[in-house]
Amino acid sequence: MTRTVYLNGDYLPETEAKVSVFDRGFVMADGVYEVTSVLNGKLLDFPGHLKRLARSLAELRMGNPLADEDWLAVHRKLVELNDIDEGIIYLQVTRGNPGDRDFAFPPEDTPQTVVLFTQAKPGLADNPQARTGLRVVSVEDLRWARRDIKTVQLLYPSLAKMEAKAQGADDAWLVEDGFVTEGTSNNTYIVKNGRIITRELSNDILHGITRASLLRYAAEAQMQIEERPFTIEEAQAADEAFFTSASAFVLPVVEIDGVSLGGGKPGPVATRLRELYLEESLKSAI
Amino acid sequence: MTRTVYLNGDYLPETEAKVSVFDRGFVMADGVYEVTSVLNGKLLDFPGHLKRLARSLAELRMGNPLADEDWLAVHRKLVELNDIDEGIIYLQVTRGNPGDRDFAFPPEDTPQTVVLFTQAKPGLADNPQARTGLRVVSVEDLRWARRDIKTVQLLYPSLAKMEAKAQGADDAWLVEDGFVTEGTSNNTYIVKNGRIITRELSNDILHGITRASLLRYAAEAQMQIEERPFTIEEAQAADEAFFTSASAFVLPVVEIDGVSLGGGKPGPVATRLRELYLEESLKSAI
Repeated sequence: MTRTVYLNGDYLPETEAKVSVFDRGFVMADGVYEVTSVLNGKLLDFPGHLKRLARSLAELRMGNPLADEDWLAVHRKLVELNDIDEGIIYLQVTRGNPGDRDFAFPPEDTPQTVVLFTQAKPGLADNPQARTGLRVVSVEDLRWARRDIKTVQLLYPSLAKMEAKAQGADDAWLVEDGFVTEGTSNNTYIVKNGRIITRELSNDILHGITRASLLRYAAEAQMQIEERPFTIEEAQAADEAFFTSASAFVLPVVEIDGVSLGGGKPGPVATRLRELYLEESLKSAI
Repeated sequence: MTRTVYLNGDYLPETEAKVSVFDRGFVMADGVYEVTSVLNGKLLDFPGHLKRLARSLAELRMGNPLADEDWLAVHRKLVELNDIDEGIIYLQVTRGNPGDRDFAFPPEDTPQTVVLFTQAKPGLADNPQARTGLRVVSVEDLRWARRDIKTVQLLYPSLAKMEAKAQGADDAWLVEDGFVTEGTSNNTYIVKNGRIITRELSNDILHGITRASLLRYAAEAQMQIEERPFTIEEAQAADEAFFTSASAFVLPVVEIDGVSLGGGKPGPVATRLRELYLEESLKSAI
């Protein structure tokens, strides 16, 4: 089946979804994105993603090209057209195509570029990695300083992921000034004596939508949460480690820079939190 | 006249030059670029640009899609087709279109995306700003840590330039840990007691091709050069300030954060260096 992609109001076969070489997203990485998961054909944490999208756009002084109900309608239409039961929907907005290249912003009435596409991921909820856990290595965090804005400047996370793979690991945890900031495309956590420890929100990390929901569910379940930075050494000495993202939900980490955690098996807190997240987020899925 | 754009082997009308929404350059800023100036229909500092392109590609573990003589042929063809007497040629290479989005690199045999286009700039050599000078303001440098690789991650330089304009200035000088790194798209210099002071090469700044040529010409002309970082305060107390880039050549700065330099007029060293650069680079233009 040929995927249908949404581009600037049109639903197109994926091979026909093209943007100008002058698009600000192509020549200047001047764009933001969101990824929303789909389970049972429904959107998870959707209001959170729309809220963060609005924030990213505002931080870059871009308008929001669609009203919330229209974003929802496009997401639902793509789920339907591409018959997505489990998977993700990717959304990107750029400052558009000024018809030429210039560091200065184009005129405000330049139409923004809006792209959405789906990725079918059968078995997303029943990911076998939730039972085996993942191995990570630490890599220096060389990204720009505004990681709270979800921009398409993903070159370094991509390089860090490839570096992790080259070292035989699944992913990289980024380290700055001695402390873990986050994973290449996820927020990171450790568990010690039952307490969940995760870096506090700032411009240094992405304000994860899954992170926000999970911490709310965990607090409601009377679990203890401590928001502060931690080092790789502290993580290696923790009882458990895990990460969250919109498409991974909660996944356990069982090895950090070659040091095994919890006997190399996912721990009870990460396992419980994954169940909790899936259960609760499905309740509010739309 | 409709511009002709080079895209992956084809010469196309500019409105037809489009790339897939799955291109790594669009969704992941996974691309590098070069800008070469054209004067009298000839390419300035061309071997330097090709050499830096090769370095940028190698640093990102990308292949070089064209041989040097083919790059030259495409540049010359675009100069001819678009009748460029004075202007620039922009070149971008991305890791191509894998047909979907993934942080992991696509297979190595994925064709890279190669785009080149021209911008006509009549009067480029006789820029009136060379006689009036420019005003700059300092802005914190929040870019990623590998500025020596000329990637399309230009969102922050674009934001900084807009911030400068909002403050009534022409450009921003970026400051990190108290020292000027560079301008938004140029290398920066000050002059004190006849000495030219400019930050030394490192991963903190772009390895400007115009910078390299200018320093060589200046050394050949027995001018004194000191490669070290300087602060905004030192720059404000300097006799002169200026910047270099492939498309600006050498342009004087006459005001930094509201402080006037040299009575608000371009100084003799910057003026002499501009003449020197134009004279010498035209000799080796091809």
